[in-house]
Amino acid sequence: MRFHSRKWVKPEDLNANETLFGGKVLAWIDEEAALYSIIQLENKKVVTKYMSEINFMSTAVKGDIIEIGIEVVKFGKTSLTLNCEVRNKMTHETIVTVDNIIMVNLGADGKPVAHNKTKIEYVVDRLASKE
Amino acid sequence: MRFHSRKWVKPEDLNANETLFGGKVLAWIDEEAALYSIIQLENKKVVTKYMSEINFMSTAVKGDIIEIGIEVVKFGKTSLTLNCEVRNKMTHETIVTVDNIIMVNLGADGKPVAHNKTKIEYVVDRLASKE
Amino acid sequence: MRFHSRKWVKPEDLNANETLFGGKVLAWIDEEAALYSIIQLENKKVVTKYMSEINFMSTAVKGDIIEIGIEVVKFGKTSLTLNCEVRNKMTHETIVTVDNIIMVNLGADGKPVAHNKTKIEYVVDRLASKE
Amino acid sequence: MRFHSRKWVKPEDLNANETLFGGKVLAWIDEEAALYSIIQLENKKVVTKYMSEINFMSTAVKGDIIEIGIEVVKFGKTSLTLNCEVRNKMTHETIVTVDNIIMVNLGADGKPVAHNKTKIEYVVDRLASKE
Amino acid sequence: MRFHSRKWVKPEDLNANETLFGGKVLAWIDEEAALYSIIQLENKKVVTKYMSEINFMSTAVKGDIIEIGIEVVKFGKTSLTLNCEVRNKMTHETIVTVDNIIMVNLGADGKPVAHNKTKIEYVVDRLASKE
Amino acid sequence: MRFHSRKWVKPEDLNANETLFGGKVLAWIDEEAALYSIIQLENKKVVTKYMSEINFMSTAVKGDIIEIGIEVVKFGKTSLTLNCEVRNKMTHETIVTVDNIIMVNLGADGKPVAHNKTKIEYVVDRLASKE
Repeated sequence: MRFHSRKWVKPEDLNANETLFGGKVLAWIDEEAALYSIIQLENKKVVTKYMSEINFMSTAVKGDIIEIGIEVVKFGKTSLTLNCEVRNKMTHETIVTVDNIIMVNLGADGKPVAHNKTKIEYVVDRLASKE
Repeated sequence: MRFHSRKWVKPEDLNANETLFGGKVLAWIDEEAALYSIIQLENKKVVTKYMSEINFMSTAVKGDIIEIGIEVVKFGKTSLTLNCEVRNKMTHETIVTVDNIIMVNLGADGKPVAHNKTKIEYVVDRLASKE
Repeated sequence: MRFHSRKWVKPEDLNANETLFGGKVLAWIDEEAALYSIIQLENKKVVTKYMSEINFMSTAVKGDIIEIGIEVVKFGKTSLTLNCEVRNKMTHETIVTVDNIIMVNLGADGKPVAHNKTKIEYVVDRLASKE
Repeated sequence: MRFHSRKWVKPEDLNANETLFGGKVLAWIDEEAALYSIIQLENKKVVTKYMSEINFMSTAVKGDIIEIGIEVVKFGKTSLTLNCEVRNKMTHETIVTVDNIIMVNLGADGKPVAHNKTKIEYVVDRLASKE
Repeated sequence: MRFHSRKWVKPEDLNANETLFGGKVLAWIDEEAALYSIIQLENKKVVTKYMSEINFMSTAVKGDIIEIGIEVVKFGKTSLTLNCEVRNKMTHETIVTVDNIIMVNLGADGKPVAHNKTKIEYVVDRLASKE
Repeated sequence: MRFHSRKWVKPEDLNANETLFGGKVLAWIDEEAALYSIIQLENKKVVTKYMSEINFMSTAVKGDIIEIGIEVVKFGKTSLTLNCEVRNKMTHETIVTVDNIIMVNLGADGKPVAHNKTKIEYVVDRLASKE
């Protein structure tokens, strides 16, 4: 699993108990899954269709740094299934895991459409091939 | 299921495709589950432990009004299991469902502690009984 | 008065004295009045025209749960007048009251237009009558 | 009336009709009244107690610049009464007016306490007198 | 230098060390520079092109009031260069200075276009001359 | 340079011209520099002291994905100097560059203190060495 985005836990991210608000974590996961899919599918119109069960294993406090990891589980015909882990950057303690996040590739009409992708691609390779 | 909190979908709630950002919906669900549990358990120290699978069945657009429904599934010893549905207020079309959200009741030391609640209570009754 | 929307007071809702920021309460009231009017008038183009005097009777602190109640005062020809109370969910202590909030029903051209509503309607009845 | 704070109306400030969200304006007014009072009363513990009726006379759209004016109506013993106008910076068209905003000066115990101020002071003069 | 906009430092503006988040200050500066330029150039399509070095000289804490000052350095042909200082309103202690912020005036096509302005103008004079 | 954090440009990140708000980019840079320094210096009390000139070379629009790259320029005694680039993830077009961001390592008393770091370290190595 590759971890990219990092967040610095600030007062605005806390719940009333001064620990990281679970809803904020879920919003960060959803954003990361969306942007990862947009990059892989080369299509800005991608939506979250499903998330498998979510386990909140530990929390974080103000000043902690967390990172969000995404891994591809499967390339479907019109979908992309991802696995996600949020963990503490300094201790690698897991905060939340979601085994399957299904993202759907939409066409201009808002309906699912084949994305014709079958494996992970890197932007650097795509750019090189255009030269 | 009783629906309480309502949201007016504003520009700040949208994703880049101008539909309701999934992460925002998840944050709203988590807040509603937390505050519902705090009311039932009469304890401000309640955390989200688990959410079962999440189905995004439809979306919403700017100007829509959505409402969030919560229902108790089970009173555990230190936990409370909730069922949640988010739907469009005007059409009752379901946007997201989460069958089981497990909230845990914590003591002052941050560890799970029995809440001694076994059924739904209404604040109005509690207040009346104090008179 | 019926209380629907609930808020969990989080760090982002506080002023510099660590009590609930008055401006946040006013924003919550305005949103609730707007969405209530949209539901009743079945028109998304409704704007706040006037609020009568606002009394801040008590405040709230981090972790409190507040609820917002709305009641119809009068159905005008192009307007809807509402009464609003914000209170602590657990103690029913009043936080803010606003006796009259006048919402105006606008047409596609942005000008006031008759809404032809004369009494409170419930979405469940509207939906049933469409079957 | 002196106008100080200015705001650039951005997408996050709009309601679902793409005009300036009334709740946002009210939050801006409350913040401006609070900080103006803190400056005048030289006390960080000041709270909003009351706002007289609020008239929404016009609105603003994305990209507009608005400015917020505050004027002292009266120095009370433990209070300060302000008058506020929000207007479009470029056209001077009034957006909202609030004739009386009563701010209360609190002591360390959270109770109203005399502020011993009777007229407007300027920070520049205060700083000069300390030299 | 004239100081207009003021901010009340609230919990949402703090970093994890409970001092004013530098990123928030930079966002406030950028907004102030943009709106100042829009007022002077009478054009809503103005963008930030460049900021000279930024010195963080002191910080602020929750409850502080800060003010943002802007001064014109130079009217270019398609640009406007500004100088900015953010300081504590009560003590006049400097928080951040930016000597040169270059704003560019864009045409409808998004390309730099001459703004034909050569000196500071006041809105009150512009409005008077239209009568 | 290594790029970690990614952002999905949403309506709330736009200025009134519907392009990425410069202030938002600066806030993202400041957060990334802060968290990168906290990781390297193994100290949560790190503040931004200085940024060298900032060039806004291109912008982004709603739906774009941007990424933020950080590189160490120099380990000082109490400081860490970073170089930052924000670019479009899909095209690698540069949006903003900042050559030198000086972060200062603070002690418990809020004063600069030696951090005793001289080169980049990886968390995975640190964790391995603790086993």
